[in-house]
Amino acid sequence: MKGKVCLAYSGGLDTSCILRWLLDEGYEVVCFLANVGQEEDWDAVQAKAKKIGATKMIILDLRREFIEQLCFRAVQCNAQYEGRYLLGTSLARPVIARAQMRVAQDEGCDFVSHGCTGKGNDGIRFELAFLAIDPKIQVIAPWRIPEFYNRFQGRNDLLDYADATGIPVTSTKAKPYSMDDNIAHCSYEAGALEDPSIPPPDDMWTRTVDPQAAPDEPVDIALLFEKGLPVKLRVGDKEYTDSLELFVALNEIGKRAGIGRIDIVENRFIGLKSRGCYDSPAMTILRLAHLDAESLVMDGKVRSLRDQFVTHHWSELLYNGLYFSPEREFVENSLVFCQRRVNAEVRLRCYKGSVSVLGRSSETEKLYSSEEASMDSLVDFSPVDTTGFININAIRLKKYGMQKAEEGQSLSKA
Amino acid sequence: MKGKVCLAYSGGLDTSCILRWLLDEGYEVVCFLANVGQEEDWDAVQAKAKKIGATKMIILDLRREFIEQLCFRAVQCNAQYEGRYLLGTSLARPVIARAQMRVAQDEGCDFVSHGCTGKGNDGIRFELAFLAIDPKIQVIAPWRIPEFYNRFQGRNDLLDYADATGIPVTSTKAKPYSMDDNIAHCSYEAGALEDPSIPPPDDMWTRTVDPQAAPDEPVDIALLFEKGLPVKLRVGDKEYTDSLELFVALNEIGKRAGIGRIDIVENRFIGLKSRGCYDSPAMTILRLAHLDAESLVMDGKVRSLRDQFVTHHWSELLYNGLYFSPEREFVENSLVFCQRRVNAEVRLRCYKGSVSVLGRSSETEKLYSSEEASMDSLVDFSPVDTTGFININAIRLKKYGMQKAEEGQSLSKA
Amino acid sequence: MKGKVCLAYSGGLDTSCILRWLLDEGYEVVCFLANVGQEEDWDAVQAKAKKIGATKMIILDLRREFIEQLCFRAVQCNAQYEGRYLLGTSLARPVIARAQMRVAQDEGCDFVSHGCTGKGNDGIRFELAFLAIDPKIQVIAPWRIPEFYNRFQGRNDLLDYADATGIPVTSTKAKPYSMDDNIAHCSYEAGALEDPSIPPPDDMWTRTVDPQAAPDEPVDIALLFEKGLPVKLRVGDKEYTDSLELFVALNEIGKRAGIGRIDIVENRFIGLKSRGCYDSPAMTILRLAHLDAESLVMDGKVRSLRDQFVTHHWSELLYNGLYFSPEREFVENSLVFCQRRVNAEVRLRCYKGSVSVLGRSSETEKLYSSEEASMDSLVDFSPVDTTGFININAIRLKKYGMQKAEEGQSLSKA
Amino acid sequence: MKGKVCLAYSGGLDTSCILRWLLDEGYEVVCFLANVGQEEDWDAVQAKAKKIGATKMIILDLRREFIEQLCFRAVQCNAQYEGRYLLGTSLARPVIARAQMRVAQDEGCDFVSHGCTGKGNDGIRFELAFLAIDPKIQVIAPWRIPEFYNRFQGRNDLLDYADATGIPVTSTKAKPYSMDDNIAHCSYEAGALEDPSIPPPDDMWTRTVDPQAAPDEPVDIALLFEKGLPVKLRVGDKEYTDSLELFVALNEIGKRAGIGRIDIVENRFIGLKSRGCYDSPAMTILRLAHLDAESLVMDGKVRSLRDQFVTHHWSELLYNGLYFSPEREFVENSLVFCQRRVNAEVRLRCYKGSVSVLGRSSETEKLYSSEEASMDSLVDFSPVDTTGFININAIRLKKYGMQKAEEGQSLSKA
Repeated sequence: MKGKVCLAYSGGLDTSCILRWLLDEGYEVVCFLANVGQEEDWDAVQAKAKKIGATKMIILDLRREFIEQLCFRAVQCNAQYEGRYLLGTSLARPVIARAQMRVAQDEGCDFVSHGCTGKGNDGIRFELAFLAIDPKIQVIAPWRIPEFYNRFQGRNDLLDYADATGIPVTSTKAKPYSMDDNIAHCSYEAGALEDPSIPPPDDMWTRTVDPQAAPDEPVDIALLFEKGLPVKLRVGDKEYTDSLELFVALNEIGKRAGIGRIDIVENRFIGLKSRGCYDSPAMTILRLAHLDAESLVMDGKVRSLRDQFVTHHWSELLYNGLYFSPEREFVENSLVFCQRRVNAEVRLRCYKGSVSVLGRSSETEKLYSSEEASMDSLVDFSPVDTTGFININAIRLKKYGMQKAEEGQSLSKA
Repeated sequence: MKGKVCLAYSGGLDTSCILRWLLDEGYEVVCFLANVGQEEDWDAVQAKAKKIGATKMIILDLRREFIEQLCFRAVQCNAQYEGRYLLGTSLARPVIARAQMRVAQDEGCDFVSHGCTGKGNDGIRFELAFLAIDPKIQVIAPWRIPEFYNRFQGRNDLLDYADATGIPVTSTKAKPYSMDDNIAHCSYEAGALEDPSIPPPDDMWTRTVDPQAAPDEPVDIALLFEKGLPVKLRVGDKEYTDSLELFVALNEIGKRAGIGRIDIVENRFIGLKSRGCYDSPAMTILRLAHLDAESLVMDGKVRSLRDQFVTHHWSELLYNGLYFSPEREFVENSLVFCQRRVNAEVRLRCYKGSVSVLGRSSETEKLYSSEEASMDSLVDFSPVDTTGFININAIRLKKYGMQKAEEGQSLSKA
Repeated sequence: MKGKVCLAYSGGLDTSCILRWLLDEGYEVVCFLANVGQEEDWDAVQAKAKKIGATKMIILDLRREFIEQLCFRAVQCNAQYEGRYLLGTSLARPVIARAQMRVAQDEGCDFVSHGCTGKGNDGIRFELAFLAIDPKIQVIAPWRIPEFYNRFQGRNDLLDYADATGIPVTSTKAKPYSMDDNIAHCSYEAGALEDPSIPPPDDMWTRTVDPQAAPDEPVDIALLFEKGLPVKLRVGDKEYTDSLELFVALNEIGKRAGIGRIDIVENRFIGLKSRGCYDSPAMTILRLAHLDAESLVMDGKVRSLRDQFVTHHWSELLYNGLYFSPEREFVENSLVFCQRRVNAEVRLRCYKGSVSVLGRSSETEKLYSSEEASMDSLVDFSPVDTTGFININAIRLKKYGMQKAEEGQSLSKA
Repeated sequence: MKGKVCLAYSGGLDTSCILRWLLDEGYEVVCFLANVGQEEDWDAVQAKAKKIGATKMIILDLRREFIEQLCFRAVQCNAQYEGRYLLGTSLARPVIARAQMRVAQDEGCDFVSHGCTGKGNDGIRFELAFLAIDPKIQVIAPWRIPEFYNRFQGRNDLLDYADATGIPVTSTKAKPYSMDDNIAHCSYEAGALEDPSIPPPDDMWTRTVDPQAAPDEPVDIALLFEKGLPVKLRVGDKEYTDSLELFVALNEIGKRAGIGRIDIVENRFIGLKSRGCYDSPAMTILRLAHLDAESLVMDGKVRSLRDQFVTHHWSELLYNGLYFSPEREFVENSLVFCQRRVNAEVRLRCYKGSVSVLGRSSETEKLYSSEEASMDSLVDFSPVDTTGFININAIRLKKYGMQKAEEGQSLSKA
């Protein structure tokens, strides 16, 4: 025997063939599947893995770990990749990879394997995690091994192999695009979506209704943040304080209101552009709520530095699979630090595809003061100070104006 | 006579009293009003200024200059202050200040004056512009002059003064908040809005209908960008290519669909937090469309650097009134450079408060390739390269993992 | 009596006149002088303050606090303002201001006062600190009070006043420039130095000999860092581990070798350019040593982010007097975090104006490996991986090349 | 025949063996050598290539292109990698790669080849350039081809091969480190230098004398910059205005004064740390002179943004071989823009290992004003303005102080 492999197994055609192929190649295989909140018939996957020949099929519920350690951190960060993508898949990868490595260690595997291709982000994300967690681990990525990818050049080759080796196949027809589902979002890419000028099919979205099909009545909610973390959701007279329940409830509210669909072209780590569609209801609502909470209670300069430094880099690092890196740890340390006083409640309205803020307040934080903000009040404020402030700031600008005038480009010209 | 003043005159109670007061103080006053697309009875303002005693009342149409030089630059920049505010007021200030200074020069004024208070951003924005444009100009800011602000301590003092000096007053009741209107947006702040926990009154918004009151039918549009600038809008079988007409048409479409309302707490330049509401339909649609156009045709690394450097700083500089500064010029030079190839058409759907992308395409740009993006195609791509890419990227990460293990914090622990 | 003032008193002509003037104005005055390592006849200052009329003269030794909390933090940060200035004065201000405020509180003062002018950085640095520490404190800055600065328009006015009020004057001749001395450096500015094209007088420098006058023999030393902090200095067979003794010894070594002179034009916070000369021997040596220690033991990406984010902003914040600010605290939190593993010894050579590295090593850190770095060794390294790394990185670049060619700007043209 | 290869040929043992091996493998080989200012017996290289079997040996003088397009750009940028390295090798690579690709195109080669290993930066730099310049070019990197590197596992294997194939060998003994020489610097790495705790051998440095051996008399020079570019060097009564002559003269001056040695540990692109020594006299002097010129004539805020954005990223991009990239072009556009007014003369003193500034002046630029900088002059300056400036800046800081006090961490505590 060549050794023992821990394979990330989803029960689908690809990883079923990989499982079979690894066995053919002389490996013993322990299958692993992470429950990160996707829709799945867990028993069926279990049975299928065993039927094909896996020594074990281990399924772990990582939902709480995923929400608390990754999704909520992203919320604290207002994380967004390239201005729009909420990172649903990127956030799940570190949690899955880490659990797979724990299984590999527990089961005494020298190898880990997965069904990702060489062109996408996920193979990179998984393997950078594997190698950081255990530099000695050996990775088998069949879709990057010539003898594998040359043999299986399309879905039909896989179907033939499944047929020949007795792998049960539920559908012989490929979906028109590929999906990846977790509690943070569902992603859709490839296939029919590869032409970015064509809208996705109406029936594609699974985590949100069409905004046009959403109820005519808005739903109002309130989210309470402590240290930048969502700790309470109020909807009508219901309250959710458990992180998992809160997240699930928000997903449900967002789904019904059609909140969180995006359709983008993004830049993959390897430098290719690709088109992706994502619906992430809870994350969309949480991000706006957190952004608004911060606006009330966070110092403006800290916020500006944080936006430039933490938000931008954390998002990019997560997207590129660099969760297990010293730079992510470095950036995240700053993030957590700046959230110490992000204590506020934000009330929001969910309605037909969008979420908007109704109001915000904080019981403990006092950076906002109506009195001070008021244009009419002069308590503790001397308007003459502003004159000095302007004049000092203008010292440099006057010189600039004179320089431009000297260059014949008077600033007064439109 | 003390000299000649060019006063930014709106026709309202404040600047009418300032006009009168300046005359009382022995100045000659030329009034100036910029047409930046606000709703106004221009003739009435004209008549009122003359009646009170202005030597002249000059009204200039700056709408095209405002749209082309400021609003479209903001679109190219995906400009946003603190993650949400589209800078409507900030964008108008440089154009207004510059025109006022041209008037001051043409009319031989030694002084310029305005009705802004010492606590807001606008006085700072105006004066930094004035002083950069002409370092010798003298500014009279009555709301920062003790003898003025001590004398007029509230609206009633102004009303009394108006009564005593024969200034016509249209309404003796103050609005419950203050508004600033231009073609990019209308802003609402102060007064009843100073409590950030209370939603604004339903009847406040002037530039958008309530999303709930918007038509049940979505409106689909297409925006064509050349060098990052919107050059064509298609709506049904209508096309708009003139910048002003395009902008007005977008405002109308957005208004009817309830697009572009935001309600935020923001950090003013002087460091106070204040609550502001803004509705900016055209700008909201244009920003998303441009963001999407860029995603198709702009290199990912350039985009990442631009986001960190240009978008962040340009937005902050504009907000803080630093348009006429060497740093704005420096940053904007980069902005224009990176837009050379932002040529794409984006199709969008406007519906009940939100705008979403239907698709995007470019006739000239080729950074996106379906063939290359495709997970199935191996044309010009060797999956083995990804293995090398991963292994090299992992060199550093493996060391990190070993270091953490040595510290007793194995990365495999959740 | 108008109240009690805590005055920063140096014993010089300026602050002696301010002391007298405050008494004349009806204040009770407690004088305060910080010992931050400057050369001073402490007893003489004490006696003079009392003679003029101070209620008390309090002198506090802040040297250790200054070195450990500020200078060593700057070393950890590789702090430099505008690429050259090591911030000697800026670092001392927070420590002095904080101690002065403690004295003010202990003595029940409602006012603090200082002798800084309105054009420099120091008045701003002191007062931003005062106001952050106690928002209720009232500041008396005579050089910004018209009745004071109009009365005392030059040194002669002060001398006349001293003469009239019996203030002892040691020298009636002004120095040709002003100096500020502390353990980190001595600064020289103004007066004869205001023409930046003329070198400073040879006899100006107090903390370093002229490199040309330095011994012909180099001095070799070793500095040990733990968590980025200098914990041991070895010179010949002497060792210094006490922070104050280590710093003093380094200053002495650097002084004799002529290390640490700089002569720059810098941008003051208020936007004016000014010329400053500084000699800071210990800080110059420590900065290079720390930079070198980091190169051996700090991850490259963390370092790159830290350089951009922490080093740049911390230096600028300190220069601008924003030590007591949430953003400094935010940035410094990152700084401390990234120093956890900066454990290394650096050996250096001091010789006639410059310091150079002889070698570095670490007993605990292993990021550097001769084996891995070696071009000859292929242990744990597959050269083929680099091919993949290159090819993947080239995906984006190939598209760029094609785009340029299409634009008629082939990249092969020089 | 397999095709035609353009080989970067140095005349050394490695590339001589590669040349022979390529011929053995059935390729036709055109050799190319760039003259970037290194010491070389050009005729000997020419003869050797021909003797071994090259079809052609093409030598191009790229010195002027190298200095003007790369070295001077680095000077404008104050470029430095990781705070110290002046990028000598990194700057040469784009120029060499571009010329090699021109030769390959002119000679009708389908392949380019070089003798770099898989662990260093240079192979990456060359190939990223090759592939950007011509996406269709095929690269042969023997040191990353298993059949080559397994066959030639050390210097002895190469010597045996040379012996067997009649390649002339000048020395059978390897140097104790490897060197790379160009007009900007000489680099030394590997071999005996791989232990970073040991100083390099005294006789290693080729471009500088030992500071201790430098003359006791300093040399004073003056450098004139226009638009940030060095346009004139004055030394005594000699003037150099030709870029190549100016650079050579500076190298000579710096060499004799022992200026420009550095010994560092750096982070290679692939993530390994390595130790490198570099002596770059002209670049060291030019960098300081330019930094000083900028301090006199560049706006402070532009400078701060430029430092963060341009200097940092341009240096990192060049180091990582990303010269031919859209992001380098983007960043460099900013760089050139901000140099428009960098017109100044800087006088410097070169003495025993260091260079220091004697003074600076500008005939055209006026941002510096002795009058304004003067603490004594109140022309155009009202000290009261500074009070306002402080008070406004303190608004935010007071709130911070109150927040800390409330947390029980009074800012007055040391």
